[in-house]
Amino acid sequence: MNEKLFSLLDSYYDDMVALRRHLHQHPELSFEEKETPALIEAFYKELGVEVKTGVGGNGVTAVIQGGKPGKTVALRADFDALPIQDEKDVTYKSTISGKMHACGHDGHTSTLLHLAKAIHTIKDELPGTYVMIHQHAEEYAPGGAISMIEDGCLDGVDVVFGTHLWVTGELGDIEYRTGPIMAAADRFEIKIQGAGGHGAQPHKTKDAVVAGSQLVTSLQQIAARRVNPVESAVVSVGSFVAENAFNVIADSAKLIGTARTFAPEVRDLVEKEIGRITEGTCISTDCTYEYDYIRGYPAVVNHEKETDYLVKVVNEMPGVQAVESEMQMGGEDFAYYLEHRPGTFFFTGAKPEGVDVPYPHHHPKFDINEKAMLLAAKTLGSAAIQYHEED
Amino acid sequence: MNEKLFSLLDSYYDDMVALRRHLHQHPELSFEEKETPALIEAFYKELGVEVKTGVGGNGVTAVIQGGKPGKTVALRADFDALPIQDEKDVTYKSTISGKMHACGHDGHTSTLLHLAKAIHTIKDELPGTYVMIHQHAEEYAPGGAISMIEDGCLDGVDVVFGTHLWVTGELGDIEYRTGPIMAAADRFEIKIQGAGGHGAQPHKTKDAVVAGSQLVTSLQQIAARRVNPVESAVVSVGSFVAENAFNVIADSAKLIGTARTFAPEVRDLVEKEIGRITEGTCISTDCTYEYDYIRGYPAVVNHEKETDYLVKVVNEMPGVQAVESEMQMGGEDFAYYLEHRPGTFFFTGAKPEGVDVPYPHHHPKFDINEKAMLLAAKTLGSAAIQYHEED
Amino acid sequence: MNEKLFSLLDSYYDDMVALRRHLHQHPELSFEEKETPALIEAFYKELGVEVKTGVGGNGVTAVIQGGKPGKTVALRADFDALPIQDEKDVTYKSTISGKMHACGHDGHTSTLLHLAKAIHTIKDELPGTYVMIHQHAEEYAPGGAISMIEDGCLDGVDVVFGTHLWVTGELGDIEYRTGPIMAAADRFEIKIQGAGGHGAQPHKTKDAVVAGSQLVTSLQQIAARRVNPVESAVVSVGSFVAENAFNVIADSAKLIGTARTFAPEVRDLVEKEIGRITEGTCISTDCTYEYDYIRGYPAVVNHEKETDYLVKVVNEMPGVQAVESEMQMGGEDFAYYLEHRPGTFFFTGAKPEGVDVPYPHHHPKFDINEKAMLLAAKTLGSAAIQYHEED
Amino acid sequence: MNEKLFSLLDSYYDDMVALRRHLHQHPELSFEEKETPALIEAFYKELGVEVKTGVGGNGVTAVIQGGKPGKTVALRADFDALPIQDEKDVTYKSTISGKMHACGHDGHTSTLLHLAKAIHTIKDELPGTYVMIHQHAEEYAPGGAISMIEDGCLDGVDVVFGTHLWVTGELGDIEYRTGPIMAAADRFEIKIQGAGGHGAQPHKTKDAVVAGSQLVTSLQQIAARRVNPVESAVVSVGSFVAENAFNVIADSAKLIGTARTFAPEVRDLVEKEIGRITEGTCISTDCTYEYDYIRGYPAVVNHEKETDYLVKVVNEMPGVQAVESEMQMGGEDFAYYLEHRPGTFFFTGAKPEGVDVPYPHHHPKFDINEKAMLLAAKTLGSAAIQYHEED
Repeated sequence: MNEKLFSLLDSYYDDMVALRRHLHQHPELSFEEKETPALIEAFYKELGVEVKTGVGGNGVTAVIQGGKPGKTVALRADFDALPIQDEKDVTYKSTISGKMHACGHDGHTSTLLHLAKAIHTIKDELPGTYVMIHQHAEEYAPGGAISMIEDGCLDGVDVVFGTHLWVTGELGDIEYRTGPIMAAADRFEIKIQGAGGHGAQPHKTKDAVVAGSQLVTSLQQIAARRVNPVESAVVSVGSFVAENAFNVIADSAKLIGTARTFAPEVRDLVEKEIGRITEGTCISTDCTYEYDYIRGYPAVVNHEKETDYLVKVVNEMPGVQAVESEMQMGGEDFAYYLEHRPGTFFFTGAKPEGVDVPYPHHHPKFDINEKAMLLAAKTLGSAAIQYHEED
Repeated sequence: MNEKLFSLLDSYYDDMVALRRHLHQHPELSFEEKETPALIEAFYKELGVEVKTGVGGNGVTAVIQGGKPGKTVALRADFDALPIQDEKDVTYKSTISGKMHACGHDGHTSTLLHLAKAIHTIKDELPGTYVMIHQHAEEYAPGGAISMIEDGCLDGVDVVFGTHLWVTGELGDIEYRTGPIMAAADRFEIKIQGAGGHGAQPHKTKDAVVAGSQLVTSLQQIAARRVNPVESAVVSVGSFVAENAFNVIADSAKLIGTARTFAPEVRDLVEKEIGRITEGTCISTDCTYEYDYIRGYPAVVNHEKETDYLVKVVNEMPGVQAVESEMQMGGEDFAYYLEHRPGTFFFTGAKPEGVDVPYPHHHPKFDINEKAMLLAAKTLGSAAIQYHEED
Repeated sequence: MNEKLFSLLDSYYDDMVALRRHLHQHPELSFEEKETPALIEAFYKELGVEVKTGVGGNGVTAVIQGGKPGKTVALRADFDALPIQDEKDVTYKSTISGKMHACGHDGHTSTLLHLAKAIHTIKDELPGTYVMIHQHAEEYAPGGAISMIEDGCLDGVDVVFGTHLWVTGELGDIEYRTGPIMAAADRFEIKIQGAGGHGAQPHKTKDAVVAGSQLVTSLQQIAARRVNPVESAVVSVGSFVAENAFNVIADSAKLIGTARTFAPEVRDLVEKEIGRITEGTCISTDCTYEYDYIRGYPAVVNHEKETDYLVKVVNEMPGVQAVESEMQMGGEDFAYYLEHRPGTFFFTGAKPEGVDVPYPHHHPKFDINEKAMLLAAKTLGSAAIQYHEED
Repeated sequence: MNEKLFSLLDSYYDDMVALRRHLHQHPELSFEEKETPALIEAFYKELGVEVKTGVGGNGVTAVIQGGKPGKTVALRADFDALPIQDEKDVTYKSTISGKMHACGHDGHTSTLLHLAKAIHTIKDELPGTYVMIHQHAEEYAPGGAISMIEDGCLDGVDVVFGTHLWVTGELGDIEYRTGPIMAAADRFEIKIQGAGGHGAQPHKTKDAVVAGSQLVTSLQQIAARRVNPVESAVVSVGSFVAENAFNVIADSAKLIGTARTFAPEVRDLVEKEIGRITEGTCISTDCTYEYDYIRGYPAVVNHEKETDYLVKVVNEMPGVQAVESEMQMGGEDFAYYLEHRPGTFFFTGAKPEGVDVPYPHHHPKFDINEKAMLLAAKTLGSAAIQYHEED
């Protein structure tokens, strides 16, 4: 069946690109998705596939029943975008100021929709049942996966597969890994409250910009000094905002960041040390603070059997090769699906052609190699339709 | 004539408060003033006083001709507000989000308008000519004073007086000083350009938040290590903005601040040292930068003879006393008037009643003691109408 | 033969402890060892074993010829101490101010000497040849191993074993690992040259203490921001010396530290980033600098076959168990032996009894569980005398 | 009498230089002075002048009785040196490693001794009494002045004069100032206690070098942010010592520094803020600390009448001119003499010839213009012998 499926997908490639570019021009932030789920719904309705919207929020699921008995395989693609200003110079650049598909979820969505179309086309010849999980809000904890699972998207599902288009991977590489493949991804917010005043009179104020700057500087000690160097930890302050007139001393500063870890005890340590350093810094600077550490997605831990299966599937496909992935510090709420069902999550190499060092995910100039969508669709599809032969 | 003037001013006090509160509720930022100059114009038109708008931008001047020969005395009040969120809990709180009269210019304006009304009322008995200078854009360099002077607001003027309502001064204190009373007030802007990316992959980025934080921390060395400790210098970063999603590493950070100095060679040193530290920090962090140092107002240097005259005037008034002021690190474009004409600038104590430590100027909870407006009006008025007896 | 060997070692235990304590009281720094090699030489001469001093510097080797044909097995123990003040309250505390056996090399030496005595005692029954390598200067690069190897200590040797008494390991644990077990351990020295002067006149100086402090603070970014978080790197400044009168501003500051890495490209990156940050810091502070990065020992990479053999040996011994070790960030010039000969390096658990968290290696209160010496001697001995059966 | 005195002093100039150079070669640290007071004693004994040693410690006083009635005038010179390595390339370079007359006290001593010789020579013609106070330990609080005063060195004294050779002053300038001329000079010591360990295992330690570095960095905020910019304050960490092997993480770090202020409330603030920042830093880094703030000499406050007298004396002398001095951030225990007796302290310009920017006081290459000794002697002498005419 692989050939038939692959041939259909090849024939959809232009549509796949066109739809991805449409989505790219119309990004929607996590939990604010409206047009994207509507577009997904319309796509399935047009196909005549049973589709359900509002799953656990803005999520969408669609179910395709094969003509023969078999297992129930779920495939997941996320569809939200990021609050980043698109700085690419391309025709399909984001049309929304300050919002951008800077992580490839537009590609994930177009990939899964066209794979669904292909599966739907040959469904009578296929065993089993296919659940397409179009997930909202992957970029922002608590994410959409938990609520979609609670809303039943995994009911009856036997196995779940997912992929991420990955610009640092070469086109043709399918990057797998047994065990932890992506990190626990937490968010923290620190509000430093000083006492504002005139920029010429620092001695009458408590300067929140100085306090915040000292804090960012000291936070570097966590990864450098406090965590066992053979473990991994990242503490990044992504946002530092104390916006004032030039001649005002900042009353407060807001720092927002992310912490990434694999081991639960390192996660606990990082949470504690951010608090310790914040406390000390605010004592030094006579400021007060609010510190929230919001646990995000746990580590994505791939199941061994399903990962071995994926490798076998890939080894039998032309044009792709299985490559073992490094552990990635990025987080993914695909983690939750794997806490409930067997499955595996892999990276599909999507490095743009002719580029040595691609713009990384979440960069204002990020872009994918669109050909990777076809390889992702074939790999997911091949894994899905052959899974029924597994014992 | 003082008694007549003072009695009129006393009778206007309720109006003075009401007008100040109206202005307080409708703050306008520097160079964006529209309603405020319109209100000033309307006030003078209502009185039947000759008024001119659009002076050097949004400035307004009005001229009142006394009934007898004499000198031409200019009185100046500024009327712009600040980009600060009003956090006071009062009925006359700012109605504009993010804008606030946090420096008392609303009071300056109401004071001068009602003083003008009183002078106008008794003008036939008064010698000389009175030029009311309502200046826009004092808070933001290059300020409104230069362009108003270029547009002729000092033409024919013999002397200029101005005051600032001053919350750290006790009600009744008139704070004078010969020579430098306020600092040179410069602005600097530093844009740090790193390379953004995913919060989980710091090694693929150049983190502009870390670079900016290190910079702010190191800038403290200028006042602490580089400037002669018997000189004065302030370097304050008022604004630090790198606004991003929590899981993004900042591509760039924008720092804006002010530098205050008295001595020209210290001013030069501070400009150079900010540049040196920015360069070193960006080499450390592999970032690039743009650094602009925009010279603002020079020091306000009061003329000796006119300051002595002011003290004499104050000593003859009931309810106020002359107190020598410290040098203030704040800047004022009143400096330019004193580069062109003799005159003096003083502070009128405006500490709120029942308060030990008032919220400082530019604080979100800043407020003045409104009674100080009356004392400011009387002092400016008394200085103006008696000046003609000076040789 | 194991029982005979073990029984002899048991009978030497009191001597083993006494000798270790003697060495503990008389520590000698790397490359300054005199009494220790003399003591080792005397021990072998007393036994009647052929001994050679001055091997590659202060090293000592001894050779024991077994009564039967077999392979040549080298066992290595290091014997230098550290410039640390002993703060323990024990009878065998260091008698030399500022010097201490804070890493257990005293124990290594006593272990190997008594193992040699036991082997010597039963040598007629043993196959093969036994080379005892007593190495000087393990604690200070370039270390003693290179020069001892150049001086022939491995000539004719078939395999080499070594162990480290390890206070974080439980008594009875023999910690093995195939592949990298210890890190590349480099040293760096940075001399910051400012301009000294009177403590009251910072503006006439270039403060080397401030520059050095800023440097240490910024160096934390290397592990936290510059190195891939799934790799390991440590940058520690162990020594910061700018010793002056309280009222002097430091002319210069000397920083000495260590960098630890596993991957060669991370090693290169760390060397480069220390240089980058030093350059930027010195531009910020108008200082100059000298930066030396002295490559120390490469990673200790255990050979697979010999490690498997060790595990097999341990599994057959009573009172010990083989436990897989984590990668350790510490360095060891045992690395060089393994670049020349097959072999393996392991840790012998030596946690003091009744202690939850022992004082770590190089701590002023460091101490070992002396019983571990017996287990180390038995493991090394058992591995040595059985090796001849390996193909 | 001035001419006779000046002529004698001129004739002593070569001896004055020779003695100063001898002292320069044999510096002795504060409170450790032995040879220097012995030399002073011998000088007076040789002259036949009554001399007393062991005054308040290592101090020496000598009394010369004039032939006529008059007042009792004390002249003071200090004689201790500094723990600085002499880096000058001159024949009279310090012969003692790590010790140096880097502040000119050698010159002070030779000046006063030869002035005493001249006064002694013409004593029969002079009115009054002359007390030569050779003070030990000026460089190290609590200093020698307090104990010498307690031991009676000011008994019967009517007025006290002192000078400092000052390399930033031009030769011929006598720098006077009424009121505060030198700062309160305090010392602080901070011991940071972390937890040492192996340089490769930062997570098992509390790194005292990192904590100390963060502290030094943050201390810059005191002068930059916490003190009113129109006031003066200096906080300098002169000594940062955490001396360890390169592969050890520092168990503790010792920071020693000086704080300089004029106003008592700023002095209190600085003491408190150092404590606050130390506390916060140690909370951040999980270290503990000991903080001692040792108040040193108060500000040197010159008496108005005696300062006016000095200016008059200088104005009548050839080859020198009175110049008003800036306030100096340096401290001087001459402050104590002025708390007990009228008097004044001045600077004698001693800039080396042909030098634009001399090495500052306390610099390893510091040197004086020896000709200034002659001008200092003449000024002190002239002030002393004419003082009896004052009412």
